[in-house]
This record gives sequence, structure tokens and C-alpha cells, in this order.
Amino acid sequence: MAENQGLTPRAQDFSAWYNEAIMRAELADYSPVRGCMVIRPNGYAIWELMQRALDDMFKATGHRNAYFPLFIPQSFLQKEAEHVEGFAPEVALVTHAGGKELEEPLVVRPTSETIIYDSFAKWIHSYRDLPLLINQWCNIVRWEMRTRLFLRTTEFLWQEGHTAHADEADAEAEVRRMLGVYRRFAEEWMAMPVITGVKTDSEKFAGALRTYAIEGLMQDNKSLQAGTSHALGQNFAKAFGVQFQTAAGGLDFVWSTSWGVSTRLIGGLIMTHGDDVGIICPPRLAPTQVVVVPIYKSDTEREAVLQVSDGVVQELRTAGVRVELDAREGMKPGAKYYEWEGRGVPLRLEIGPKDVAKGQVFAARRTGGKAPIPLEGLAVSVQHALAEIQRTLFDTARERRDAATRRDVSKDDLIAMMAGPGGFAYAGFCGDVACETAIKDATKATVRVIPDEEFRSPTPPARCVWCGRPATSEAVWAKAY
Amino acid sequence: MAENQGLTPRAQDFSAWYNEAIMRAELADYSPVRGCMVIRPNGYAIWELMQRALDDMFKATGHRNAYFPLFIPQSFLQKEAEHVEGFAPEVALVTHAGGKELEEPLVVRPTSETIIYDSFAKWIHSYRDLPLLINQWCNIVRWEMRTRLFLRTTEFLWQEGHTAHADEADAEAEVRRMLGVYRRFAEEWMAMPVITGVKTDSEKFAGALRTYAIEGLMQDNKSLQAGTSHALGQNFAKAFGVQFQTAAGGLDFVWSTSWGVSTRLIGGLIMTHGDDVGIICPPRLAPTQVVVVPIYKSDTEREAVLQVSDGVVQELRTAGVRVELDAREGMKPGAKYYEWEGRGVPLRLEIGPKDVAKGQVFAARRTGGKAPIPLEGLAVSVQHALAEIQRTLFDTARERRDAATRRDVSKDDLIAMMAGPGGFAYAGFCGDVACETAIKDATKATVRVIPDEEFRSPTPPARCVWCGRPATSEAVWAKAY
Repeated sequence: MAENQGLTPRAQDFSAWYNEAIMRAELADYSPVRGCMVIRPNGYAIWELMQRALDDMFKATGHRNAYFPLFIPQSFLQKEAEHVEGFAPEVALVTHAGGKELEEPLVVRPTSETIIYDSFAKWIHSYRDLPLLINQWCNIVRWEMRTRLFLRTTEFLWQEGHTAHADEADAEAEVRRMLGVYRRFAEEWMAMPVITGVKTDSEKFAGALRTYAIEGLMQDNKSLQAGTSHALGQNFAKAFGVQFQTAAGGLDFVWSTSWGVSTRLIGGLIMTHGDDVGIICPPRLAPTQVVVVPIYKSDTEREAVLQVSDGVVQELRTAGVRVELDAREGMKPGAKYYEWEGRGVPLRLEIGPKDVAKGQVFAARRTGGKAPIPLEGLAVSVQHALAEIQRTLFDTARERRDAATRRDVSKDDLIAMMAGPGGFAYAGFCGDVACETAIKDATKATVRVIPDEEFRSPTPPARCVWCGRPATSEAVWAKAY
Repeated sequence: MAENQGLTPRAQDFSAWYNEAIMRAELADYSPVRGCMVIRPNGYAIWELMQRALDDMFKATGHRNAYFPLFIPQSFLQKEAEHVEGFAPEVALVTHAGGKELEEPLVVRPTSETIIYDSFAKWIHSYRDLPLLINQWCNIVRWEMRTRLFLRTTEFLWQEGHTAHADEADAEAEVRRMLGVYRRFAEEWMAMPVITGVKTDSEKFAGALRTYAIEGLMQDNKSLQAGTSHALGQNFAKAFGVQFQTAAGGLDFVWSTSWGVSTRLIGGLIMTHGDDVGIICPPRLAPTQVVVVPIYKSDTEREAVLQVSDGVVQELRTAGVRVELDAREGMKPGAKYYEWEGRGVPLRLEIGPKDVAKGQVFAARRTGGKAPIPLEGLAVSVQHALAEIQRTLFDTARERRDAATRRDVSKDDLIAMMAGPGGFAYAGFCGDVACETAIKDATKATVRVIPDEEFRSPTPPARCVWCGRPATSEAVWAKAY
């Protein structure tokens, strides 16, 4: 992409903007394999920071990592009826290996419940072995028809938590705990506000009793399901014979959960914060938080400016800031600015001869605003600025989300909203799948969640937005990725 | 495994001991998929520590992580003639996906050179883009006929570095640099002494000009190839059209390298340090470095002992020691010792009422030896003890390796050695593959490396150990995993 070529504005074509922003930031590439992407170093560095933060949160809540096989015997998938129905159309099959046809085809894992419960059945004997709290970081394959970088790819990277519990209450607490971890990660790390709640039966995970989700509203007012946490009941335990001796001396099946987030989160980060220049990384997940650009003309200026720049980089690095010095020769400062802006670096420090003379640097925030910062106490000032940018990104996103949220909408409102600006539409729901289907057919909107109490309207809607019968709950509709 | 059931002694059946040691430590399990293993939390925790240490070393040498697709079009593998010949017999093929037969089967990656060079061809335009230093952490599938946990599995986890350079000297420096990183990791982290050198043509990577390796000698006197670093020349660049504009304005193909280590390293760790009780983790890679076991009878004793134990755990954790408190009720100290010994925890601190009274803990090293340590200055003493254990493990392994090494062996020596105790046999080599084949047929030994200068004998052997013709080099023979 040529240096001065702009991106397609978001307002003109959000989808084109999204792809161009990814290319400009060099986050990912299409690959020669249909639907698979190459995650480039700039994109993978964001994923590594996400992994580190999430992994720390998983470990702090008592989970341990393990690794289960990529391949699953086809017969395993068939042991849980709803599960196979949900995943069979999407699987990739290994039929030949080592020069021979296999006796039984192997499924490339579309999710690992079945292969993991086979191990759980071996490992769990008594209530003393429970809860068993396992997580796995791995690649997943689902043969998708329409793919988009990060959001929906044939192969993606994710983590999948799998836990087994002695009773339903303990399992439910786990499902809720991990939903809370996801929400905290989305809000505190990604600066992406989300709503939480439970999915309707038609949107739940294949084989689950209930699926809970976090949903964020992107800048095009479409919803992104960013993480899910499933109460699996005893379904998989029964299918795979995961039984344990209870404290009372009886025999019971475990209650299990699974939960996951994926490289899709990177898509959410881009679509929550990017502007027409490109992506914007929230500081806590920015591989480069600060770039230092020295500005000079003469050799004398160069020496003075580089000396101060080196000192600044050293001071920030010591303070734990992820900082880069861009001292490339033969490249104008403007071209450097453009490149780092496209990569979403939240804070740029320009250092010229005048700044050196004044004992300051000139700070430009990727979120807007320029101001000098004194060299004295620079690290603290920079950390303060990064924290402010993080907060500003979250606040801006939440205000945008709230402005695109309508409550107690009527049928006509819902139709007009989904035909027009989109957004989150809160309204009463009778709970009947017929209404869900009719609404989807008419508006392309789906129930994103039956919202948790915190997000519900003060006065619960009395009637279903579509059929007018009494509402069993409030629901949030939106078009979604 | 029952508490008091011993492992098969190493001297009796090393292979049985190896499997039992893995089971006792709960490092891995066989899986229902042929040749694939489940890496259990205790095993995966070692892998995570290995990953962290290696990843830091890769980043310190300028490499960045990325992620490339699991699937490779079959035609890609065929673009480099030697490469496809080497890997075709081992590949797993996806022939059906999304309910349809694929037009072109997809290979599940047995290594990623081909899919990565496709990207390199897009990313590299000019000498300014070089060197390009990429690493990937991922899973790999090679359809092996005979598999062993960690050492040879159909699916394994690894890292693969892939780099492109403007000239041969820069590529060669990279190949050597990463071999040095692997050696340093093996010796300083795993406490596993290795020899380094270059492979003969018959043992090199399919498609490489030269393969360098680190080789460790296990306790059964068989060699383990623990890491390889390949000089790929311009072979893959030509096959995939990876060209760049040179500084002089011409057009040239890049010189490339690849290098990798895998979960096989965990097998190396086990076979280097384990004893008849089970595995021994070198402290730097021990998920639990110290276990604290409180010992008491009465409730009064319990309170005093637990209070001191908690304080010890807190102090050690603050000092950065990975420590666990084993305060399980209803389990005798001896049973706890046995369990933690089987897991290879390097240092155990026993705290009983007498220790509390004396202001000390009683320290038992997994490598042997018991002694009290004063509570005063405990963290420093413990760190000192861990460092000593790390050094002892390395020294012991090196002495064992050196004792099993013979130099300037004759043909009869070589035959007797390989029929008997095994070990590293240094001898002259004419460089003829016919001699390699004859030696392998007669002794099952292969050339592990043509050793680097540091490891060569002071007087170079004059004649080939097998045919008696003039030697072109010294070689190290051993039976190998």
C-alpha cells in the first residue's frame, strides 16, 4: 500500500476498511489454503499479549494447561447426538496417512470435548479428583463457507477450558466465573465494553444445556460474540462414561463446563477502536506502546537528538514500557508517523532540537491530541498517558455502544433499526423459536443474549416484540458477525 | 500405580522404566488416536517453562513469532524434490471437508518450510527486508510407525524458526547462532550436556545443504538428537521464487535457514536425570521447585507447624521460588514424599515440631542428601540449594556421558561397544555412505555428528574405522532414539 493512500472510510464500506486496516498494520494475510490465514508478527504479538493476560487469569482461578490430540476418531463425535449434528457439517477429515487409507477417518478437532472426556473418564474416580480444571491453547478447524480474517477462518487459534464438577451448582459457578473472566479481559485489557447473558436454545453450543456469552457492539453496529461459556450438564459425562464415587459413597456422572475465546478477539479489537487511518491498539495489548521518533536536520542536531532519544527509550524500557526507537535514516518523520499510526501504536514521542533545548518531548496520542511532556519524570508521565488512552478508548466505545442501544423497541422500531443504523435492540421476547426465526428472516437480527440482570431495562417489557404474547424475558437483538 | 510399587529398575529395562516414570509423574497418557499422546498438566507445565525460556532467547536474538496454516496444499510439498521425498511417506492427508471431497488433498504440516516460503515470497522484496527472522510455535504431524511418549509421536508440539538472509555467510551465522541457543538451553536449563556438530548427508534434513544438531547421551547410552539447525541454501528460495533486490541493484534468491526443538526435549530431560524412583526435574524447569510438607501429631503441633509452613511458603514465593504446600489431611508424610519424589520435585522441606523449636526446616534433595536449614535466611539458602542441584545434575550427566565416551576406537571396539554398553564412539570416517550403511547394518549405530572443533579428539584419527582408507573427518557413532 502506497504511503499516502488512505483507507476506505469506515462510513463508506466498513468491511473494506476492516481488511485494509489489517493489511496496513500487517496483522495477517490470506493464505493459499482456502479460508486459512497467516498471522503475521504484528498480529501474533497482539495474540501473545492476549494469551499471557488470559493465561494468568486462568491460572489465578485454579486452572492448569494440558494438551490433547489434534485428531479425534469420527466415532467419538457421534457419541453426543446434538454435538455431532452441530459440528459434522463443518469438519475436515483425514482419510489417508502414512501412505495408507485409515480404517476409521480422523476428524481434525472442531472443539475438543469428545477427546477430552475420554481422558477425564480415565482420570476421574472419586469426588476427591473434583473439580478438575483444565485449559488448552491450540488450533481448531471448522470448514466455514464464508471466511473473514480473524472473525471467521477455517483454522483459528483459541483456548478451550474444560472442567468437571461434583454437582450442578459447582459447575454453574464455574461457567459464571469464566464468563466474568472474559468480561474483565474484554473490558480491562481490550477496552471493549460487552454485555453478558445467556443464549437462546437456537444459538447455544451443540450439546450444551446453556451457553453464556459476552457480546460487544462493533463500530458498524453489528454484534460480535467474543467469548462463550457453556454449562454442559451431564450430557458429555453420560456419553463418555465420566463417573465418580460421591462423598456419600454413591456413583454419579460429573457435571461439566467448557469455555473459549479465540483469535476472533483480534477482530473485535480492530472493529471496536480503529479509525479511518487504521487500527488503534489499547495500550495494555499494544506490542509497541510508545514509538520514539527523533527529528533532526544537521549532524550536530542528529547527535544531540539521538542521545536524548536513546535515554528516553532506556528510561521507558526500564519502567516496563514497550517502546521502540525509530531512527531509520533516509525516511521523513511524516512517513514514520504514518506507518506507526497504521500499526495502532497508542503514543508517539517526537524529539527535535527544540525539544532537547526545552528539556521535553512532544507527545502525540493515537486517539487524538498533542502536548509536550517534560523529560523530568517522563516515565511516570508516559505511564499516566497510556492509562488515560486505555480509559478513553473504553469510554468512547461504551458511549458509542450506549448511543446505538434502544430499549423497549416496538416491532416497527426493530425492523427500522435493523434496516437502518443497526445496534442493540432490547425488547420483550415470548421465548418461542418461531418468533426468533421470523425476526431473523425479516431483519437479519438474532437474539444475542437474554441479558444478565445488570444489563436489563429497569421496567421489564411485558409483551413479545414480535407476536405480542406475554414476554418470558427481555432479549437483546442485533445483526451479528 | 500403588503407592509402594516400585518402578522397573533402569538397569533391568530402560524402556519400561521410561514409560512407568512418565505414568508415575503423570506427565502424559496414551490417547485413543494411534501414536498421539495426551500431555497432562504436569508434563505441559514443563513444556511451558521450556517454551518461556526458549522464546525469551529467540526474541533476544531478534526473532518474532508468527503463525502459518496447519494445512499445506499437496502440490507445495512437491516443489522441493528432496523435501517431498523425505516427508511424503509420513504425511496425513485431509481429503474431505465441509461434507465434500476436496479438489486437492491438504497435507497436515509435517514441517512448514513450504507454506512459509509462499509468504516469504510475498513479504520480501528488497535487501532492506532482510534478514527476516520468524519463529512459530505449533503442532506437527508425522505418521510414525513406532511411537514412544514424547520421543516419537504422530503429533507433537514444537517451534520452528524460519529465516531468510541476503547471503550465505549471514545465513550460516544464523544457523550457528541458533545451534548455540539450543546448546545453551540444553545445558543451562535442562542440565543436559550435549555435543554439537554437523550431520552426514544421509542424516540431514530433507532439502537442506547441511544440518547441525545437538546430541545428548541418555542413561542407556543411546543418543538423543535434541535439536537441529538447517542451512537450506537457496533450495527453497528457488522452489518458491523468494527473490530480492540486492543492495547492488541486482536480483538474487534469499539464503534461508530453519531450526527446531520439540516436546521430545521432555523425553531427553527424563532419560538424562531420572532414577529408579522416577523423574528428576532440573530446578530451572521444575514446575514445582520446592514442596513443603508439615509433620505433626497433636492439634497443638499442627497449629504451630502449619503457621511456620505458611510463612515459609510465603517467603519462598515472594523470592520467586515455585513452591507448593502439601497440607493434605489423612495422608502420611511418607506417602507424600513418595508422590513428590515421583514427580521429580528437586527439593522437599519437612517441618515438624522439633524443627519449629529449633528454628529450622529439614531439607531433602531429590538428588540425595538431607540436612537442616535455618529459618533465618531461608529463601537465600533454598535458592542456593536449587542452584547446587541444577549444577549437580549437569555435572553428574556430563561425567556419565564422558565415562561412556570412547575415542579413537577400532572396528572391533566399535562392534563390541555397540553390542555391549553403547555410548559415544569417536573414530575416523572416510565420508563414504557405504561405510555408514555397513556400520549401521553391523552395529545399529549411526553417525550422530561430525563433531565441532571443541569436541574433537586432540589427535585427529588418520583412517576410517571401517574401511581403513584415509579419514576425511572424525565422527561420533552411537545408537540413537
